[in-house]
Amino acid sequence: MIYFDNSATTNFKPECVKNAVYSAMSNLSANPGRGSHSMAIKTASMVYLARKAIANEVGLKNPDRVIFTASCTEALNLAIIGSMKRGHVITTIFEHNSVLRPLFSKAKEFYTEISIVEPNGNSIDAKSIERLIRKDTYMIIVNHVSNVTGQIAPLYEIGKLCKKHGILFVVDGAQSVGYNKIDMENNNIDMLAIAPHKGLHALTGIGVLAITDNVKLRHIKFGGTGTSSTDIYQPNSFPEGYEVGTLPTVAISSLIPAINWCEKNRIKNDKRIFELSEIIINGILTIPNITLYTPPNLRNGIISFNIDGLSSSEVCDILSSQYDICVRCGLHCAPLIHKYLDTLDGGAVRVSLCGDNTYGEAESLLLALREISELS
Amino acid sequence: MIYFDNSATTNFKPECVKNAVYSAMSNLSANPGRGSHSMAIKTASMVYLARKAIANEVGLKNPDRVIFTASCTEALNLAIIGSMKRGHVITTIFEHNSVLRPLFSKAKEFYTEISIVEPNGNSIDAKSIERLIRKDTYMIIVNHVSNVTGQIAPLYEIGKLCKKHGILFVVDGAQSVGYNKIDMENNNIDMLAIAPHKGLHALTGIGVLAITDNVKLRHIKFGGTGTSSTDIYQPNSFPEGYEVGTLPTVAISSLIPAINWCEKNRIKNDKRIFELSEIIINGILTIPNITLYTPPNLRNGIISFNIDGLSSSEVCDILSSQYDICVRCGLHCAPLIHKYLDTLDGGAVRVSLCGDNTYGEAESLLLALREISELS
Repeated sequence: MIYFDNSATTNFKPECVKNAVYSAMSNLSANPGRGSHSMAIKTASMVYLARKAIANEVGLKNPDRVIFTASCTEALNLAIIGSMKRGHVITTIFEHNSVLRPLFSKAKEFYTEISIVEPNGNSIDAKSIERLIRKDTYMIIVNHVSNVTGQIAPLYEIGKLCKKHGILFVVDGAQSVGYNKIDMENNNIDMLAIAPHKGLHALTGIGVLAITDNVKLRHIKFGGTGTSSTDIYQPNSFPEGYEVGTLPTVAISSLIPAINWCEKNRIKNDKRIFELSEIIINGILTIPNITLYTPPNLRNGIISFNIDGLSSSEVCDILSSQYDICVRCGLHCAPLIHKYLDTLDGGAVRVSLCGDNTYGEAESLLLALREISELS
Repeated sequence: MIYFDNSATTNFKPECVKNAVYSAMSNLSANPGRGSHSMAIKTASMVYLARKAIANEVGLKNPDRVIFTASCTEALNLAIIGSMKRGHVITTIFEHNSVLRPLFSKAKEFYTEISIVEPNGNSIDAKSIERLIRKDTYMIIVNHVSNVTGQIAPLYEIGKLCKKHGILFVVDGAQSVGYNKIDMENNNIDMLAIAPHKGLHALTGIGVLAITDNVKLRHIKFGGTGTSSTDIYQPNSFPEGYEVGTLPTVAISSLIPAINWCEKNRIKNDKRIFELSEIIINGILTIPNITLYTPPNLRNGIISFNIDGLSSSEVCDILSSQYDICVRCGLHCAPLIHKYLDTLDGGAVRVSLCGDNTYGEAESLLLALREISELS
């Protein structure tokens, strides 16, 4: 089986991650912050070190501002719904439904107006965003790397804009953290949402919202925190006020080995993803009846296309059933960019890579695509 | 190390659970419902079978009404905030902050008034609840087994009341599912929240809200569902409309082996918990300066007490540091029952058992408690 759906979840988990998870099931299964006994303290200490490792990975000073959530989607819900108020929000055509749905579903309740930036050429630019800024603009939400085209947003320039105008800068790092180094401080990012089960090769079941010290948030979930327990209202303390219930300790135990593995293998993985992207994109460009949606100069492991005369789901079905190659079809939960690309009807085929993919796998994919393209 | 904090999280995970988790990290890491390739279908099939196993375990007909959440706390948030409206809600003094905090935090927004039932003797009875029912009572929320005293609520009688008056019946099964068989249909339960990392010995990072077909819910989270992807508003379809983002697939993979293990070992585990409870409660009753809060006739593995002259945290610290015994101190996130017991200041020591605890461990605890009680 060849797995090219890494933008959904990386199937490859390093041995160190699997071993940490196996061991956590026996040794770190108590409730951190909920007791003073040795096992609770041991688990709490692991959780704190994981916060520190994440903070360090993304250039955030205060580990207590690393909020563990159920998923990157929940992290974005907390960032967005947690900050919404009367006023104006700018976001982009590249956003995933994890941004669009909380934003549009809650817009009326919070009297928020929304502007959507379109690309200038292939990518979003800061100038197009600046033109939309109003006096009451309070938040800009940007997908760092598009899960459809792989397009990269200019975080540094947008961050400068946000700082200049006193606007909250929220970044969806679902497709980037683990692959791309992000420094929240340098880029003036106020909130960064992370999907550790993708680029970091950690377990599913854990997301992260990294928040700078100045940000205040409305709660979106309520429950036991192990603190202020006499209070039947939710405490505002970070991080536990925003992490109700028992944490996904086993999934959290995968974070430190995952980060260590990524850092150790960063150069090798980057090179592999760059080279395989080049092979696949160049190969696709030689097949006459394929339309490529990823800009042909991009080399970051996300490659979307359609074969003329076949729907994206037909191509995926043939790839899976006849070649045992797993790629993703459809809309990838990002409707606006598909509308823009005129692929709202059937979506696109997406090949997404990780550092564990091989040259042989890329060649097998191209062989299969050539054969399938001859069917159409 | 002796672990008696099973009401927080059971530290003991059966080999079959650990093996399933280890294997899922390599074989079931794709996104269910997000692609048509073989790995996504394999993962989706595992997730569906897990829904079916949970539905079967709790007497729910429709597996599509098994909603996977981040935790039992999130399941309760979804049940409560998802159903709140203008009117009246009844709940009990035994509730955890996972019920109290969403309810009280959102009461004003939804114009909901709240009545709290006190016990009649040790336990809540249905008659006390019936006396509080008003014309506009639309929801009754009951903790099945108290995480502080172990007290059991009469679900069948309360369910009959709810059916008679057309009131939603929400049950917090955090401390019971896995230990006690619950049949939602027989007990007229509309929504049951489950913490599989406790009584079922499954992984942390997965909760369940089991819902009957007639219940409609407001969303509390928004994002990609793999369905209706052109729609920037949240779909109402079950289960995926209520399960945004990537599911905790690895934690879900622990559910079927966990349920199978519990069913296979049910009689043995029940007997062990009953007998150890008896040994510990009878032992505690022979120590003169201990106040027991658990009714002395209860034998369900949750035993709370204080030693005169020592705070609950002092007792826990001594047990952990000098005897390597892990028990829980403090308020256990359930403030109202502590107010009722007059233990709001320092909480109580809680010993909570599972079927993996041994007679030797119970004797070690009693020996330690006798020695500590002589310090005070």
